Amino acid sequence: MAPSACAACRSQRKKGSDECLLAPHFPSDDLQKFAIVQKVYGFSHIVKMLKDVKAEERADVVKSLVYEPTARVKDPVYGCTREIHQLQKRIADLESLLVYTQTELLDMRFDHEKLVYFPTICEEVDPMLSCDPLWELQI
Amino acid sequence: MAPSACAACRSQRKKGSDECLLAPHFPSDDLQKFAIVQKVYGFSHIVKMLKDVKAEERADVVKSLVYEPTARVKDPVYGCTREIHQLQKRIADLESLLVYTQTELLDMRFDHEKLVYFPTICEEVDPMLSCDPLWELQI
Repeated sequence: MAPSACAACRSQRKKGSDECLLAPHFPSDDLQKFAIVQKVYGFSHIVKMLKDVKAEERADVVKSLVYEPTARVKDPVYGCTREIHQLQKRIADLESLLVYTQTELLDMRFDHEKLVYFPTICEEVDPMLSCDPLWELQI
Repeated sequence: MAPSACAACRSQRKKGSDECLLAPHFPSDDLQKFAIVQKVYGFSHIVKMLKDVKAEERADVVKSLVYEPTARVKDPVYGCTREIHQLQKRIADLESLLVYTQTELLDMRFDHEKLVYFPTICEEVDPMLSCDPLWELQI
């Protein structure tokens, strides 16, 4: 008995086959998944792209082939490049914030070391808490 | 006199036309640019995608349509989703580093404030740099 036709075979009005390259990736109960990919790439191009890679890479090819036109449906102008731009912007923002925080940390370390090794600087903060080193005192 | 055929018209062996939708985006001296887009999407689909958006958005559509198959040529398995994954990983790394740096800064601020308001803590750092407040000294 022939297997039931996958979503790709159904789109071509073909019977299912054990040798169908697309069947493992486009089950018959998810017609939309194949429809969105077919609309952009076309049946024969999808088959060619899957044939051009190793069998164990085909699931990842299908994932990325679904991802790109899904992004294009959401954004007909930029497609998945919008997400790339947004991620690049997020990276630029994070890098700025990181540089700012690292600079603050360096400044704080510098101030801290001044306090530890030259503690008289405490006087500048509060003369009541004067902490002159002993050898500066006239005992 | 008819304008010279653009790269898209040349691919279809058609004469150039002032009304050609693709001519502004696929000049005749860059056949490769159209070839790479046509290979994935096909001529009629490209025309449809450009017709579906406003005239002023078409240049951006073409840029993203060139970007996606260019990424697919470089990486037949992941296409432009590889760049998305790499950017997401970079964001995760930056976020971790930022949290680490912010924690260090908070710890440093806490230590710094202890030194400023409770300067005897200097002794813990280096007894040679003892900085007891004056009123604790037997002068």
